[in-house]
Amino acid sequence: MSAESRLAELGIELPSTPAPLANYVPAVRVGNLLIVSSQGPLANGAVDPAHRGKVGAELSIDAGKAAARLAAINVLAQARAALGSLDAVRRVVRLGGFINSAPGFSAQANVMNGASDLMVEVFGENGRHARTTVGVNELPLDFSVAVEAMFEVA
Amino acid sequence: MSAESRLAELGIELPSTPAPLANYVPAVRVGNLLIVSSQGPLANGAVDPAHRGKVGAELSIDAGKAAARLAAINVLAQARAALGSLDAVRRVVRLGGFINSAPGFSAQANVMNGASDLMVEVFGENGRHARTTVGVNELPLDFSVAVEAMFEVA
Amino acid sequence: MSAESRLAELGIELPSTPAPLANYVPAVRVGNLLIVSSQGPLANGAVDPAHRGKVGAELSIDAGKAAARLAAINVLAQARAALGSLDAVRRVVRLGGFINSAPGFSAQANVMNGASDLMVEVFGENGRHARTTVGVNELPLDFSVAVEAMFEVA
Repeated sequence: MSAESRLAELGIELPSTPAPLANYVPAVRVGNLLIVSSQGPLANGAVDPAHRGKVGAELSIDAGKAAARLAAINVLAQARAALGSLDAVRRVVRLGGFINSAPGFSAQANVMNGASDLMVEVFGENGRHARTTVGVNELPLDFSVAVEAMFEVA
Repeated sequence: MSAESRLAELGIELPSTPAPLANYVPAVRVGNLLIVSSQGPLANGAVDPAHRGKVGAELSIDAGKAAARLAAINVLAQARAALGSLDAVRRVVRLGGFINSAPGFSAQANVMNGASDLMVEVFGENGRHARTTVGVNELPLDFSVAVEAMFEVA
Repeated sequence: MSAESRLAELGIELPSTPAPLANYVPAVRVGNLLIVSSQGPLANGAVDPAHRGKVGAELSIDAGKAAARLAAINVLAQARAALGSLDAVRRVVRLGGFINSAPGFSAQANVMNGASDLMVEVFGENGRHARTTVGVNELPLDFSVAVEAMFEVA
């Protein structure tokens, strides 16, 4: 099944692509790589307070996971806007995850699974990616999670 | 206009390339990608105290932005040293920005614009890049900002 | 001398590859690049308490450097598992280092040399890489260090 069909089957509607926060672009293609700028858990151009702040303090692991999934949905929205269709994706190569972390919080991997699981749901085996997940003390707009990506494209 | 001409027109003189802080090299070319190691706001081999410390505490947003611009100038110096000329750059593909952030500071995107704006000034449309910007609690040598880059090269 | 021979000469035995902490894969090849997921200082599937916590507080610089070397050994183990042999590596292109940092600690570069030095020991000149090293406030499983890599492969 194609990625676009799976997305429809999952009932996921990709949002209109959030504008970059500053003087850069959401995605750049170089050769058969597509590099997508880090995306936060924006919805309808705003950050829900439930997706703001530090995981391990204001946010539970599950709330962080939901934020990671939403950030990853925005990554897919940017990839589709750049490529015309997600069916042009051959493989999710790498995700980078930055988790806004309360002192002492070390379950970043669980949080980031919100993003990774989505990729596997949408792309199947081709959604299985390399990944780097770290904690950070602050993120732009007080995002709880930011996700960047590298795709192999046709 | 070529990137080298724009640089001259902007009156920017690239510094002698700062030596890596340790056992690595400033840039590696692989295929038509040039990967540049993260650079700090060094000038003449030293970090001005004005470019040290946390944005949102010791440094204002504008001071952070100046540090980001300086770090990006060092990125360009390393790219020129690796390539012979910035005119060999086809496209700025991606910048990664790490902002040494005071607790509660979330305007990292504004700070990183100091680097992004420079790329667009020097390379025009080809300077528009994908970008990931995050806050961190500490940086090497207490840099306020560190910037890494990926370029597409001829 | 081949990388595998150097490794034997150095007396380094690569561990069985640690399983990813979550829903992702340890390495992905795209074209002639191999992207390796960030690795922590695991040994025999566990993190020694000596490799846990913040450098500059619980860990000295030397202890952090040992953890970085161990994380880099795990990177090599993943690369070998993906490629069949480290002799398929043409060049270490880039390392990313994330150092779990106590407040006020800014010697991340020294810590990360534990990883960089290993690459040069094993691959010689081809082990010299671009590098980005930053401090972070927290890491998965309270790792003191995490290391990710990009290799050029045959």
